[in-house]
Amino acid sequence: MELTPIGTVASPLTDPEAAPRQGDEGAPEAWIEVVPEAVPALDGVGEGDELLVLTWLDRARRDVLQVHPRGDTSRPLTGVFATRSPHRPNPLGLHRVTVLEVAGPRLRVSDLEALDGTPVVDLKPVLGGIAER
Amino acid sequence: MELTPIGTVASPLTDPEAAPRQGDEGAPEAWIEVVPEAVPALDGVGEGDELLVLTWLDRARRDVLQVHPRGDTSRPLTGVFATRSPHRPNPLGLHRVTVLEVAGPRLRVSDLEALDGTPVVDLKPVLGGIAER
Repeated sequence: MELTPIGTVASPLTDPEAAPRQGDEGAPEAWIEVVPEAVPALDGVGEGDELLVLTWLDRARRDVLQVHPRGDTSRPLTGVFATRSPHRPNPLGLHRVTVLEVAGPRLRVSDLEALDGTPVVDLKPVLGGIAER
Repeated sequence: MELTPIGTVASPLTDPEAAPRQGDEGAPEAWIEVVPEAVPALDGVGEGDELLVLTWLDRARRDVLQVHPRGDTSRPLTGVFATRSPHRPNPLGLHRVTVLEVAGPRLRVSDLEALDGTPVVDLKPVLGGIAER
């Protein structure tokens, strides 16, 4: 169960503490740079498509099983599977974005809450959008 | 980037050819059996919650970059990132389910399109549901 990066995030977000917690809280535009070997898998992705971007949150902790939601210590410790904490046994991120531009192996996308350099491991269409399967 | 199973799917679905293509096309109820080490991460997940289940599609091919959508050869070859094909460089499955029952380390869920024995790698709340982060 070894993941291979299919791309990398290029983003102005570089500080984990400053990263917004969800895309609609003000995440910036970013680029997804797809590795050459995976470029044929992009065929059919176009401007305006809504995609789910799966990332590997390489700066997260894998040994954290419970957190205070939103870092608010007045809230009780909660299992990470009931939260969107980046800290979890398999630190996979899931981000819903809109494709703004396709430039060869690079996608410019809206509202991507992921730090610069984050590995991308999969892209999927939002259901109901482009070809389901 | 090595994934660790946090659980396993127990399902009546055993035949890849018979598996429905999306949950709403008639997938059955299934159980998710969480490994003992990850059980504390379930705290806060309850009946009625909507979850995203991330799986490792262990019977998928990783060398397929383009498919005919829905296996329909009259449709043009399309990059797998524009489809929900299980065949893709990182064969991660993403399933939206409702929790029907929590029984210790086991969750009974609705409409899970995943074969019996499929490894589960993450559980996340649907946004807008339980604690966001």
